[in-house]
Formats: sequence, C-alpha cells, structure tokens
Amino acid sequence: MQLEKYVRNITDFPKKGVSYKDITPLLLDPQAMNQAVELFLKNLPHRNLDKVVGIESRGFFFATLLADKLKAGFIPVRKPGKLPHRTHSENYDLEYGSDTLEIHEDAIKKGEKILLHDDVLATGGTAAATCKLIERCGGEIVQCNFLVELEFLNGRARLEKYNVSSLIQYS
Amino acid sequence: MQLEKYVRNITDFPKKGVSYKDITPLLLDPQAMNQAVELFLKNLPHRNLDKVVGIESRGFFFATLLADKLKAGFIPVRKPGKLPHRTHSENYDLEYGSDTLEIHEDAIKKGEKILLHDDVLATGGTAAATCKLIERCGGEIVQCNFLVELEFLNGRARLEKYNVSSLIQYS
Repeated sequence: MQLEKYVRNITDFPKKGVSYKDITPLLLDPQAMNQAVELFLKNLPHRNLDKVVGIESRGFFFATLLADKLKAGFIPVRKPGKLPHRTHSENYDLEYGSDTLEIHEDAIKKGEKILLHDDVLATGGTAAATCKLIERCGGEIVQCNFLVELEFLNGRARLEKYNVSSLIQYS
Repeated sequence: MQLEKYVRNITDFPKKGVSYKDITPLLLDPQAMNQAVELFLKNLPHRNLDKVVGIESRGFFFATLLADKLKAGFIPVRKPGKLPHRTHSENYDLEYGSDTLEIHEDAIKKGEKILLHDDVLATGGTAAATCKLIERCGGEIVQCNFLVELEFLNGRARLEKYNVSSLIQYS
C-alpha cells in the first residue's frame, strides 16, 4: 500500500499558487490509517515514551492514535485562549505576521519523554515553537514525526536538534 | 475508575459565570483514555459502522480512536474554510450570533452507517447541525456519543430523533 495514493492534491488552496496536500482520503480508509500508525511506530527510536503532543488541529488525528498504541498520555497544543488552565505560550512567524501556540503548564513532568506529532512539516515554524513549549515544561523530545513532509520548504533545518521522521515526502 | 475524577472544573472560563469542564487531565492518563474508549464501544447499539464523524476540534480526540477500534473511516467536520475539497455547510445558532460547520461532500456514501462523536453535549446546536450534514451526504446516524453531557442545557431535546449516549453527566 502506497500511502501517498491517499493524499489528494488541491490546487490553489488555501490561496492561489499553493498545492494543498489533503489527507482526508487517508483518514477515510481504515487500512491506510492503520498502516500509517504502524509505520510511525516502526520509525521511533524506542517506545519508552510518556506523552504524545499533537498540534491543533490536524495533528490531533494521529497523535491520539499514537498515544493509544504507546500507552502514553496525549497533550493538545492549541491556539491562544483555547486551553483553560495555566499555559506557556510561544509566538512564531508566519509568511505574513505571526501566531501563537499554548500548552498547559502541568501537562509534562520534568524529564518525561515526549513524541511531537503534526500532520504536515512545512517551514517548521509551528513544530519549532512546540518544541520550545515542550522543553519549557521540562520534557525531553524523543522524536518529531509528521505524516507529510514538504521537503522544498526545508522545515528540518529548524528542527536540526531533533530526531525527525516523516512518512510521505514531496520534493 | 471514575472517569469524572479526570475532568477538571475551571471556573469563569471562557467567560464569567461559566464552569468549564476541562478534559485534558483525562487525555493525559492512558488508562482513563482506554476506559473511556471501552465504555463508548460498550454503549453502541452495534459495531457494524462505516465511519466515525468527529467535530472540530476536541471531538477529534476520541473520534479517531473510535474509528480505529471499529475499523471504520474517520471524517472531520470542520469550521468554514478549513476543508479543501467540495463541502456541504450548515449554519447553527450560538448564544450570540451563529456559526457554520462543513463536511466534505464525498466523505460519506449513501446508506453508510455513521457514529457522530463530540467531547461535550451542551445545547446540542453543534451536534444537530452535524447530523444534518451527515444526512445531506446520505449517511444513517447510528448514535451520537459524547464524553461529557451538560444535562441542564437539555441538548438531548435537539437530538431526539437519534440514539444519544454520554459517559459523564452533570445535572
């Protein structure tokens, strides 16, 4: 099974000139979902993990599944104002302007081993901000994994300190 | 294990006078997560389901897990402009103003058996709009399930045509 067959190209979304990678056909297929989860697990350096962090909101799809398989906790990293308890915040740059992500301060205990997951690695800004949030909580990042990697945006450069893995690459 | 012990009350969130039910402590505990999933499955009328629909974004947490256990597809229902392909849209009323949800038109085939999941049943507006979206695609709703039900808001009244199930109730 080739997972990339389940990713649909949408031209000019969300704006002209962008070829958007739509993963919803993959989500519709239980066998493709299961294979993606198995590959994510196979690519981990080890399975001794405490928590899986998923980035809002498409990162939640596989982060909960990975947490379940690893018998680890699940932590949502969310947009500002969505998490109700005390949070750490990180700003990060977008093409135009900036955005913010938050994590609950008490989500991670010092020294816990963390897997970061998001659906797509593009420029790496979102993932890099999430790495900072995890480390501010005292977490140790074991891997950052992604379903899709847009290699031409070179997101790995911003995550060079970390073990990075992706299942489908576009160059 | 009492699941309600893993739900944290946050007073005056998102605004004064509201007691918000924070499910993130439950998500952090793999045993509590697993028990919630087992209870969801136990409460289904049958397990012959084709797709699980999760409502953005906290509905995604358990919807993907339920899809996995049921070997069903997963469908995200999302806020406007987030789904890249052709969509159906439904407006629904909020306390002040209104909001919109969307589903991909091709996510469901006529006659498919669907489980709708969201984290919290409050007034039922979001779930009722999602039921309309599912039925516009030709899906047959087997159950609407929720982790938390705020019984005092009487959301079941808006879902009276459907089989409704929740794991934790506040009256």
